Amino acid sequence: MSTSAQIGVTGLAVMGRNLARNFARNGYTVAVHNRTVSRTKSLVEEFGHEGDFVAAETAEEFVAALERPRRLVVMVKAGRPTDAVIEEFAPLLEPGDMIIDGGNAHFADTRRRERELRERGIHFVGTGISGGEEGALHGPSIMPGGSKESYESLGPMLEKISAKAADGAPCVTHVGPDGAGHFVKMVHNGIEYADMQLIGEAYQLLRDVAGYTPAQIADIFRTWNTGRLDSYLIEITAEVLSHVDEASGKPFVDVVVDQAEQKGTGRWTVQIALDLGVPVSGIAEAVFARSLSGHAALRDASRGLSGPKPSALGESEAAAFADRVEQALYASKIVSYTQGFHEIAAGSEEYDWDIDLGAVSAIWRGGCIIRAAFLDRIRAAYDAQPGLPSLLSDETFAREIAEAQDDWREVLVAATRQGVPTPGFAAALAYYDALRAPRLPAALTQGQRDFFGAHTYRRVDRDGSFHTLWGGDRSEVSE
Amino acid sequence: MSTSAQIGVTGLAVMGRNLARNFARNGYTVAVHNRTVSRTKSLVEEFGHEGDFVAAETAEEFVAALERPRRLVVMVKAGRPTDAVIEEFAPLLEPGDMIIDGGNAHFADTRRRERELRERGIHFVGTGISGGEEGALHGPSIMPGGSKESYESLGPMLEKISAKAADGAPCVTHVGPDGAGHFVKMVHNGIEYADMQLIGEAYQLLRDVAGYTPAQIADIFRTWNTGRLDSYLIEITAEVLSHVDEASGKPFVDVVVDQAEQKGTGRWTVQIALDLGVPVSGIAEAVFARSLSGHAALRDASRGLSGPKPSALGESEAAAFADRVEQALYASKIVSYTQGFHEIAAGSEEYDWDIDLGAVSAIWRGGCIIRAAFLDRIRAAYDAQPGLPSLLSDETFAREIAEAQDDWREVLVAATRQGVPTPGFAAALAYYDALRAPRLPAALTQGQRDFFGAHTYRRVDRDGSFHTLWGGDRSEVSE
Repeated sequence: MSTSAQIGVTGLAVMGRNLARNFARNGYTVAVHNRTVSRTKSLVEEFGHEGDFVAAETAEEFVAALERPRRLVVMVKAGRPTDAVIEEFAPLLEPGDMIIDGGNAHFADTRRRERELRERGIHFVGTGISGGEEGALHGPSIMPGGSKESYESLGPMLEKISAKAADGAPCVTHVGPDGAGHFVKMVHNGIEYADMQLIGEAYQLLRDVAGYTPAQIADIFRTWNTGRLDSYLIEITAEVLSHVDEASGKPFVDVVVDQAEQKGTGRWTVQIALDLGVPVSGIAEAVFARSLSGHAALRDASRGLSGPKPSALGESEAAAFADRVEQALYASKIVSYTQGFHEIAAGSEEYDWDIDLGAVSAIWRGGCIIRAAFLDRIRAAYDAQPGLPSLLSDETFAREIAEAQDDWREVLVAATRQGVPTPGFAAALAYYDALRAPRLPAALTQGQRDFFGAHTYRRVDRDGSFHTLWGGDRSEVSE
Repeated sequence: MSTSAQIGVTGLAVMGRNLARNFARNGYTVAVHNRTVSRTKSLVEEFGHEGDFVAAETAEEFVAALERPRRLVVMVKAGRPTDAVIEEFAPLLEPGDMIIDGGNAHFADTRRRERELRERGIHFVGTGISGGEEGALHGPSIMPGGSKESYESLGPMLEKISAKAADGAPCVTHVGPDGAGHFVKMVHNGIEYADMQLIGEAYQLLRDVAGYTPAQIADIFRTWNTGRLDSYLIEITAEVLSHVDEASGKPFVDVVVDQAEQKGTGRWTVQIALDLGVPVSGIAEAVFARSLSGHAALRDASRGLSGPKPSALGESEAAAFADRVEQALYASKIVSYTQGFHEIAAGSEEYDWDIDLGAVSAIWRGGCIIRAAFLDRIRAAYDAQPGLPSLLSDETFAREIAEAQDDWREVLVAATRQGVPTPGFAAALAYYDALRAPRLPAALTQGQRDFFGAHTYRRVDRDGSFHTLWGGDRSEVSE
């Protein structure tokens, strides 16, 4: 066996297999390895004609097949399986070699692994990969962390296999050191949750308040997809809503159990935001909406709760309402991205990653689930002003929200009065109104905390910490 | 030195000192110990007349002063200091002795410590204590976890020093094994965050929409405090709002910087709820509202964002609006408690704690920050029906929400139109409307997930998991 492979992939479930094929189809010689050898063989048998594969049966063969510095992509389940594979391969590697983890690892695990392997002279590149099976094969959005040095060696290959944005730019960049790639992938997924929740709320309003059928709503989404909401998720929403279930003849969406599942990255996004002190209420509401939907017994016990029943609008009103929903959806989407990018900025600062937010939005323009025309504008905003305090500080977004907000508010008024749950829209508006508020009731909160726990407060007119002797003569003392 | 002390307290900062005094004032002989000996001495000098103290200078003296089985209360900072104290004292103890951790520990740490000490024959009793300095001295709400055996020995003493509810019942119960006490204390604090946020939103609406002054709003809260909202937090809100700053002559609430701080238990409540799959959107919004308030630079950059300015109502309308706000506050509060008790029920199931939810609400009736008349009714609801799927399934609460909801919705309509941020009220209503919804857009979410990730879905009319070949002929396959 010759040491001819430029890259190796171990773990040949569907994601790993498609990624290996993607490398091969782009002209690289790819060593492939799987714990169960039959999977390796079937990959080569089925897809060997697509390019140059080197099938390795053992870890030693696999490592021996790679040119140096070795580039070894691990595509196994996040968690213990990843650690097990690292423990298997690391002893066979030499200083300067690279292990690339393409799974959905928690960034804290990636930071730990990177540190441990760095001590052994091995580059560990935690890499977010988005786009599912299709993306892995035809071009995903790739978010590698790890050292700059490893990116110099790996970057050109990743650029080749990645998705390309409309302007031809590859959807990959060196996000930052150690766990930065997996962190950004995590937030990507959190934003994806929020996008999907907002789309769900728009759908429900169009159905219950406007009175449209799923097929009609599909057409509305198709129209929206030609405008500023142009995105993969809007596109597939139209596909799902226009699909008719063959067995029952009913709209597909009506035969699916309305209990959403989740795999954990949305939850992590919220948990880490809480640690970082970043308000991501829109993402949180999306995660909660999924978990609430899954509590079947609780929902069964609650269906008798009193409340208004939505009454559908007439035809002409319905069309106007749909336009308003588009405004509400767009404004809420801006807020979701504002929150997500705030979290990335906060993570970058906390872990010294120096992440380029414009570059992140640029690599999400293709390949990944949240790919959207919109991201070009986020990139433009950060390119124009890299120190932008938040997306809402960008003039264009601020103006668009200003224009959208009457409709946004009226859609929420309709939802509130008619009893259609819109936690995502509502959280987004509350965030917007809180950010722009001249004063927040947080002053009262601080007063209460000082009253019951002597936690002290600051004053608007003087520096220092103060405490009022609430149980005494209520004079103020400086702490 | 004689082995005469029934209980010992190590860590004599204000909470530990007051707890030690509370034991002594209730007739117990209390061994006291602190790393810095001067603090031990000053406690005895200052408060020695209140009861029997045994001042111990060293760990050995402290342990020797305790009757067997020893009851050793640790009142140090949560985290490493707690572990350090345990490591110092555990080797000096004998099987059957008890270490009681009265700090704000994370329940997962408490579970670990309990397991480790159990192996050494020592009972570890992680105990939530609520009520601040005053509560520690005059009677806190106490939430002990740990073994039943330890509670048999410790319970009577805790019952003596605890707060008493209006009916005379001590505000302490054996919550459940290992970390159950600290878990329940954590959720208590999460509910406290939500209560405070809802009060803050009510205040802001009364100020901006109704046009009342802080002094007038204080009077409104005083009136509310004579009704179903009767609670410590409503009471102190009136005190804080009626307080006038001496230096400036302005309302106190207007001179306090409107950036709320937090210590972490609210954040934990949300993070753990996410792990347990429990939607606690009201608590999450309260935590986010605090963190948002603290992002001063972001808020400064956002004040120019466009939006409506609230315009105050006339006098007669204002009074009617205030009544509506009371309804909105009360309904949102029911939802917060519903979410909090759901989290306790889920934790209890996950960790096999068998927590009695009625007993938990009963011990929160006195001593702690969220003490309220309301909790008597929660207890009644769980006593009447221990397997209640949720608080909203209780007839009385369901009826009250039914009666409140028109006002609740109209308050949100006013807030939405006038641009007053009400994330807590809005999250509560969205939760309520989602729970009672016949269908949720989660079905669309599942369809999207199946489209882009082949995650499969379930059908309403047949068992099994299904996948539509979206990229093919769109036929359905059974997985």
